[in-house]
Amino acid sequence: MRWLRYTDSTGTHYGLAEGERIRRVEGSPFDGHVPTDDWTSQDQVRLEVPVIPRTFYCAGLNYAEHAIEAARKRGQEPQLPKQADIGYRANNALVPHGHDVVMPPDARTIHYEGELVVVIGKQARHLTPENALDCVLGYTIGNDVSERNWQRSDRTFWRAKNSDTFKPMGPWIDTDFDPSRARTQVRVNGRTTIDFATAAMIFDVPTFLCAMTQYLTLYPGDVVWMGTDGQSPDLHAGDVVEIEITGLGTLRNTFVQG
Amino acid sequence: MRWLRYTDSTGTHYGLAEGERIRRVEGSPFDGHVPTDDWTSQDQVRLEVPVIPRTFYCAGLNYAEHAIEAARKRGQEPQLPKQADIGYRANNALVPHGHDVVMPPDARTIHYEGELVVVIGKQARHLTPENALDCVLGYTIGNDVSERNWQRSDRTFWRAKNSDTFKPMGPWIDTDFDPSRARTQVRVNGRTTIDFATAAMIFDVPTFLCAMTQYLTLYPGDVVWMGTDGQSPDLHAGDVVEIEITGLGTLRNTFVQG
Repeated sequence: MRWLRYTDSTGTHYGLAEGERIRRVEGSPFDGHVPTDDWTSQDQVRLEVPVIPRTFYCAGLNYAEHAIEAARKRGQEPQLPKQADIGYRANNALVPHGHDVVMPPDARTIHYEGELVVVIGKQARHLTPENALDCVLGYTIGNDVSERNWQRSDRTFWRAKNSDTFKPMGPWIDTDFDPSRARTQVRVNGRTTIDFATAAMIFDVPTFLCAMTQYLTLYPGDVVWMGTDGQSPDLHAGDVVEIEITGLGTLRNTFVQG
Repeated sequence: MRWLRYTDSTGTHYGLAEGERIRRVEGSPFDGHVPTDDWTSQDQVRLEVPVIPRTFYCAGLNYAEHAIEAARKRGQEPQLPKQADIGYRANNALVPHGHDVVMPPDARTIHYEGELVVVIGKQARHLTPENALDCVLGYTIGNDVSERNWQRSDRTFWRAKNSDTFKPMGPWIDTDFDPSRARTQVRVNGRTTIDFATAAMIFDVPTFLCAMTQYLTLYPGDVVWMGTDGQSPDLHAGDVVEIEITGLGTLRNTFVQG
């Protein structure tokens, strides 16, 4: 199943995608929900971010090449993370598939980061490797847009990672997706700039969920962004960035000058 | 006005405090709201966190003594922050006034941090020093409970700052409070352990809100925790920590062994 969140003339709803058609649902995938007999199509509605998370988790460094390259650019010895320390991003920055990413006037070096996103469906604490995926509703795609100068200069990632529009997420939540054989491919203006095995993470999804829930409760609607591999070229106004995860979908956003 | 959020036999509501009595309100302080003729009292209900924020901001180091002392304990030269870089905390960790703080079994050094909390009432972007406070609905109190070993050892503050129950916030939102002459006093088991001028911040509330909204949009229900001064003794099971901000209220929580 693919859950879409969208706005039409009657408000914002959840719906189930069947090809280009959308069947409106009363409720949401996170509580009771009933399919209606109202149908629309994707070209008749505005897609929304598939969920506004209660807590917005992000793994940060979780692929070897990205971690090594990031250290090299800082002139440091690469150190791969030794444990699954989860980080955070901010809801103000979320925008859906198709929405512009606005580059602040004083931003200099803006990069994409194409990421698999885990969407939590059930409250969970003290997960084990065997049952960790039981709390997962499905998956979507995120672009962890980053300004590299601010990432170095500031005490926190607030504007480097969380400026308005810096967190495209979508287009939908797929409940049947299996990351084990998927590839994450990023294209800039149609040209492939990176292509990596989605599952080649330093710490995989069950490992993160087990570590996290030793100390915290996951709630329905929480999201966990799983990190990215490789590097990005510097992005410029007018660039169209597509992140495709095979079998899951494509997240497309245009970068514009703010 | 003092806004309380509470649960009784009919559900979770917002209400307005008048002494020990609560007048139930339809809606919330963040959208349309209408006072009802239903009254209850604080001893008849369970207080809730006064708001589940859309984004949970936290200033981190924002008082000189705390920053200097924290650096000294790390064996580093103290460096006061040079700009108002906002940070984040996580909603899973929020608990209300009166709720236990559960110390994880493997936690070793747990400290309080008594903080003024700004509650945003209106959407805001590009604030100026003159109008920055117009978006503020009111103020509440937070305890930024921290495990100091994890704060040093982990790549992020996830379990050091955001283990379940590590973020008591409450008891209410006061819309008339003025921080300029207030003092923040922390008591452990009734003994005052620190007492500082609430307004003696390195970067004050308008400075943070202006800096933040240069890059991000504040939304109704967002909260901004403003940092703390001084130090905490190591806390132990059974300790009762009270954070009083004069004119605003007292946030009280008991620490228990998990």
